[in-house]
Amino acid sequence: MTGIDRAAANAEAFRRMTAAEPVLVDILPARDVVPGMDRRIVLTSGAPLPWEDYEGGQREGLIGGALYEGWAGTREEAIALFDSGGIAVGACQDHACVGSLAGIYTPSMPVFVVEDRATGRRAYCNMYEGKSRKRLNYGTYDETVHRQLKMVETILAPTLAETVRDIGGVPLKPLMIRALNMGDELHSRNTAASLMFARELTPGFLRLFSKLGSHVEKTVELLTEDHYFFLRLSMAAAKVSADLAHGVEGASIVTAMAFSCREFSIRVSGLDGWIRGPHASVEAKLFDGHDASEITWMGGESPITETIGLGGFAQGGAPTLQAYQGGSYAAMMARNETLYDIVEGENPDYKIAAFGYRGTPTGIDLFKVLKTGILPVMDIGIAGKGGGQIGAGVVSAPMDCFRQAAELYAARYGD
Amino acid sequence: MTGIDRAAANAEAFRRMTAAEPVLVDILPARDVVPGMDRRIVLTSGAPLPWEDYEGGQREGLIGGALYEGWAGTREEAIALFDSGGIAVGACQDHACVGSLAGIYTPSMPVFVVEDRATGRRAYCNMYEGKSRKRLNYGTYDETVHRQLKMVETILAPTLAETVRDIGGVPLKPLMIRALNMGDELHSRNTAASLMFARELTPGFLRLFSKLGSHVEKTVELLTEDHYFFLRLSMAAAKVSADLAHGVEGASIVTAMAFSCREFSIRVSGLDGWIRGPHASVEAKLFDGHDASEITWMGGESPITETIGLGGFAQGGAPTLQAYQGGSYAAMMARNETLYDIVEGENPDYKIAAFGYRGTPTGIDLFKVLKTGILPVMDIGIAGKGGGQIGAGVVSAPMDCFRQAAELYAARYGD
Repeated sequence: MTGIDRAAANAEAFRRMTAAEPVLVDILPARDVVPGMDRRIVLTSGAPLPWEDYEGGQREGLIGGALYEGWAGTREEAIALFDSGGIAVGACQDHACVGSLAGIYTPSMPVFVVEDRATGRRAYCNMYEGKSRKRLNYGTYDETVHRQLKMVETILAPTLAETVRDIGGVPLKPLMIRALNMGDELHSRNTAASLMFARELTPGFLRLFSKLGSHVEKTVELLTEDHYFFLRLSMAAAKVSADLAHGVEGASIVTAMAFSCREFSIRVSGLDGWIRGPHASVEAKLFDGHDASEITWMGGESPITETIGLGGFAQGGAPTLQAYQGGSYAAMMARNETLYDIVEGENPDYKIAAFGYRGTPTGIDLFKVLKTGILPVMDIGIAGKGGGQIGAGVVSAPMDCFRQAAELYAARYGD
Repeated sequence: MTGIDRAAANAEAFRRMTAAEPVLVDILPARDVVPGMDRRIVLTSGAPLPWEDYEGGQREGLIGGALYEGWAGTREEAIALFDSGGIAVGACQDHACVGSLAGIYTPSMPVFVVEDRATGRRAYCNMYEGKSRKRLNYGTYDETVHRQLKMVETILAPTLAETVRDIGGVPLKPLMIRALNMGDELHSRNTAASLMFARELTPGFLRLFSKLGSHVEKTVELLTEDHYFFLRLSMAAAKVSADLAHGVEGASIVTAMAFSCREFSIRVSGLDGWIRGPHASVEAKLFDGHDASEITWMGGESPITETIGLGGFAQGGAPTLQAYQGGSYAAMMARNETLYDIVEGENPDYKIAAFGYRGTPTGIDLFKVLKTGILPVMDIGIAGKGGGQIGAGVVSAPMDCFRQAAELYAARYGD
């Protein structure tokens, strides 16, 4: 096909991505709101794979999801049900969801319902399990994980849901804009955003306290106990923003980046489906008592945040990450600067004070990646082979995905 | 006198200053808790002056204080009472208080009671009047200012007081340490600290809501409406820290820096009284519609924060200040770095992530200032001749104070 104006298509994808106004409108069980979740299905991160290809922690997470739903009494029964198709496996992003690490979604799990104000388009993300390093999304399922998930389902989510409805929803972009100037990059650090989110809900918490009592106190505690609560809101906001930019004919802008246990994949606005490549090497800082031999891949779609100019694309706003994921602030700033060479533009809303309020580099153009050789970077949590989180780090997308994408683009649109 | 070990004395002053553990224990009317305030007295910022020497906004602030207390019905009556000694004028720091801008304290005004845990030593600071640019501490007194002060006295302070007692006090240092990594320098920016303070009080707010109702909602709003609420807590924490370091025989460490309408003054640990010098020039960024001809001095003791390693000594932690007080982040970082040459040491608690978690430069040594020619810098609000805040900026202490201090030191301790 000829006559495609790639520059105009990319400008339009960028415009749609940055025009998004994500609002948290509700929190509901996935089965009641996520398309295709009212059946025996477990969603997981990454481009879809056949059940038998999931391995390690991601497979354990799927099994844990089945056990959590009570569809099987034992690990073996759960495996048999997956083998027979009695339980389906789905890819999060095929259901407008986005998965943190293994990204396990089951029908009874509560999800944030985030809606773009102008278009009504929705994205969903399930909720942070808490600061324990053992979590289902890190491939672990035991009594502790079960208890924590039940607490999220029966205390945190209903309390938050009632509060969010009471105050009429929470526009997320204003909080995210401010958080970037308060030490967050909204992927591996969400401390300020979580505090501001709790602050936004406070009038509702006060009104509901006489009815909900200690559940409100517990909820406030969970919202602000560490650096991660807001991440799931940042992810849902990023997902709806990226989805709005997807499907622009001729656009070479990346609209999703995701890991499974097997591979790294990207989506591109003007192309169909996932473009799959190998994993890449990671620069990690591990918690005490762990070493590099334990590092494993079990999925991860939180790089949806990098796709819209946050996370690794906003490291200049988050100097404390050096203590968590390694590296120096000078190196983080320098790396952040280089990313302007591979994007469509500077974000009109998400800005970094340390860069003189320059907008974050936003809208990865696969052709600029190929031309410069500069790879998108992502701030990620690191999972261990034994399950659980063992550290954090920075990972670069593999060049192979972008080479394949360019070939697909040429095949579809001509050179 | 010979035999003074200045190095050991300075190390001891630094140790005392940095060992402080300030805790907010209560909020009470000044008359009930501040020494010498149970009479007709108005406290104001800076080394003490005779009443007739106060001019401009600082004089207007004192008059406003008398009117606020109802000691006079008109401006003229108030002036006559100050003239006759029927109302006394005091210096904030002679009463363990510390004044923001004009620093007007009257007996009925509520003050934060901040106590050092180990020693029981206390410092006090009155409360932020709110985001209106017209405020008594900026030399304005009218119906709006009166209403705002009454709201602070009758709604904000009692609600906060009851909440603080309910939760058993609030240790301030942990909040301040975290705030420095969330964009605050705890003088001209206190956004994160104010949010965290509101978060600390939330369990109390919830428990007291059924009793106090809308006063709680109003209080939460006032705590987080702009960037300044926590400043008065930062100032009280700094005051108690600096006071602990004062009075170490032979120490040449600065323990207070303060403006009045007439002059800039410092206190030094091993010397008595205030050492007075001229004002210095300011690099200001003014709000729209104002120009440099309007800038005036009407006092200010918030540089107590710089005295203990915050504010201008922690600019590297607060990149957004460029938008408020001018300059670039690169210039702020460079200036912050130079201040290590004039201090006793690096703060063991207050650290800057952007400097690789280096402690802030803390404990200004007057001899290092003289030797290097590097002047302490302070982040300040700028008052206008017509009253009210017209901008913000960075000011350098005048060298003359340090020259005089060195002469006094030599006279007392020998060369």
